Amino acid sequence: MKTTVKITGIGSYIPDTIATNESFISNRFLNEDGSEIKDSNPIIIEKFKAITGIKARRYIEEGLVTSDIAFIAAEKAIKNAGINPETIDYIIVAHNYGDVKFQSNQSDTVPSLASRVKHLLQIENPRCVAYDVLFGCPGWLEGVIQANAFMKAGMAKNCLIIGAEALSRVIDQHDRDSMIYSDGAGAVILQSVDESGGIIAHETVTHTRDEAHFIYFDRSNQKEESDKIRYIKMYGRKVYNFALTNVPLAMKSCLDKSNVAIKDIKKIFIHQANEKMDEAICQRFYKLYDMEMPKDIMPMSIGELGNSSVATIPTLLDLVYNNKMKDHKIEKGDHVVFASVGAGMNINAVVYQF
Amino acid sequence: MKTTVKITGIGSYIPDTIATNESFISNRFLNEDGSEIKDSNPIIIEKFKAITGIKARRYIEEGLVTSDIAFIAAEKAIKNAGINPETIDYIIVAHNYGDVKFQSNQSDTVPSLASRVKHLLQIENPRCVAYDVLFGCPGWLEGVIQANAFMKAGMAKNCLIIGAEALSRVIDQHDRDSMIYSDGAGAVILQSVDESGGIIAHETVTHTRDEAHFIYFDRSNQKEESDKIRYIKMYGRKVYNFALTNVPLAMKSCLDKSNVAIKDIKKIFIHQANEKMDEAICQRFYKLYDMEMPKDIMPMSIGELGNSSVATIPTLLDLVYNNKMKDHKIEKGDHVVFASVGAGMNINAVVYQF
Repeated sequence: MKTTVKITGIGSYIPDTIATNESFISNRFLNEDGSEIKDSNPIIIEKFKAITGIKARRYIEEGLVTSDIAFIAAEKAIKNAGINPETIDYIIVAHNYGDVKFQSNQSDTVPSLASRVKHLLQIENPRCVAYDVLFGCPGWLEGVIQANAFMKAGMAKNCLIIGAEALSRVIDQHDRDSMIYSDGAGAVILQSVDESGGIIAHETVTHTRDEAHFIYFDRSNQKEESDKIRYIKMYGRKVYNFALTNVPLAMKSCLDKSNVAIKDIKKIFIHQANEKMDEAICQRFYKLYDMEMPKDIMPMSIGELGNSSVATIPTLLDLVYNNKMKDHKIEKGDHVVFASVGAGMNINAVVYQF
Repeated sequence: MKTTVKITGIGSYIPDTIATNESFISNRFLNEDGSEIKDSNPIIIEKFKAITGIKARRYIEEGLVTSDIAFIAAEKAIKNAGINPETIDYIIVAHNYGDVKFQSNQSDTVPSLASRVKHLLQIENPRCVAYDVLFGCPGWLEGVIQANAFMKAGMAKNCLIIGAEALSRVIDQHDRDSMIYSDGAGAVILQSVDESGGIIAHETVTHTRDEAHFIYFDRSNQKEESDKIRYIKMYGRKVYNFALTNVPLAMKSCLDKSNVAIKDIKKIFIHQANEKMDEAICQRFYKLYDMEMPKDIMPMSIGELGNSSVATIPTLLDLVYNNKMKDHKIEKGDHVVFASVGAGMNINAVVYQF
């Protein structure tokens, strides 16, 4: 008995507040050891843009928290799917830091964000199970893989999987990497349906021996600040090298399992981590098949939207699937690859047919 | 094709530091609105003990965090199962607040606690996927249900499921409820085996319409403290009434699905939330079958160990399974019920045969 698991609705929330690169012009950027950076801010920002491709990012309003935007994206995905929310069997919310109120340093994770979203959706059915998954940036795609397992095990038919994050609440203004991070939410409805296609193959790996603490939580680069307040931190070069080596291999392993030919892949939806890194990953992936990366294979939103962790893939998918991005279209029958990498260090990939 | 999923190893970590009820004698307890409590501390503590059955609880040492004790419990479970850690397909860590350092107010959740545990276990196999689940106190049992799904979907054969929590790091010393909370960790190895029994049935419900914020995060009862620092809080009476109404029904639903007769249930392992509440739940459960609750059906550890959230059931299971609790034994072939309730509000139950 084959279970086909398909995306039947997608929604996202892109915050209205745009923080351009210029908004960082007065920051006092410091090296990790607290020492001054030789370059002036205009040069720091120009170099940053050259490496990451990021021109702007989005921040949620002061009155909102992550679960609020998760709810907005979820509502849109439910409407897009046209299903009765009372028929949802699982609500899975991927995030990393819980709800962090504006100007607070505390993460609020009790109740789970999934419970908060279910409450806001006013779903009454107690058999709609709501839980959160923490898996770094690949958390949303891992939620999809978990929902797929529940459907294959006969435990669910309709699942809502949300990726939501407000990294603006955990950034160190003295760290150049703070310019990478963004806020947003994306959601999909996955359903067990009587069709062909859907999730064809998936792959997940967790590298922790040397890599567990490549992305971590630590004090400000400004060492006069309290050493008790910590922020999102990463060893950027290590993350870059790790991703470049391991993501193409995981994508290939997934594609080979799927028995879909590489030439039949129409789009690659990759976690919007860093434009140059994403391009290099994709080039290496094609190189594993002795091919050049096709033009327009990879829709990208990072230039304008930054890196909103778990939210980037479902947000990008919403833009393409619901025709909000020129130059990129998905048609029924198209094969695509989803891939993500992030804190853990975790990598996952899914081969999917619309 | 039937997959049998069995517990093949159990381990726990019970912190050495014992905080007796007397250690709260000098606390300044206040009502939720900040007003003084009429009773003296000896009377407050006596009433607390009468309601909850708690005489002492355990706190982790200053230098430890939740992922450290998760690792210790995991190491013991692996040893108890006698498996090669490199054969583990999933490490699932249930917790609620991440790693909170001593005298810090910040939860550290990046990387996931599961990644930290995998790192500490020095497991190299990248196909051992490590993630965290946030599901209130029932998180550990939900991790077991998720692992069961992965096995049934053919995605895993060996899973490590850990419940670990250090509630001592998030308690408000001005709140009488702070006396409930404890620290601890418990872990099991679940394996897909060629035997009968194992997980026979499971049941999960999430009630959020009115109940989502029964257990929540809020400021101290001492209103002169900063309103930015928040602690674990609950509406105790609401939680009590909710649990008494809904937990017996979920347990019955699970048992009826299992086709195991109530008279064949040898033990009930219930989340150690509150002794009187747990007894009342169990009595009501038997009453649904027109029976009296059998003597010695319910091993209890809360009197000495307090409520360590996700850790109570696997810790209790370790005590009984590994013969560390007099008057309670498990034999091969015994049927048992696991049941939990907590923040979300979530309830789950599993019918299991050893």
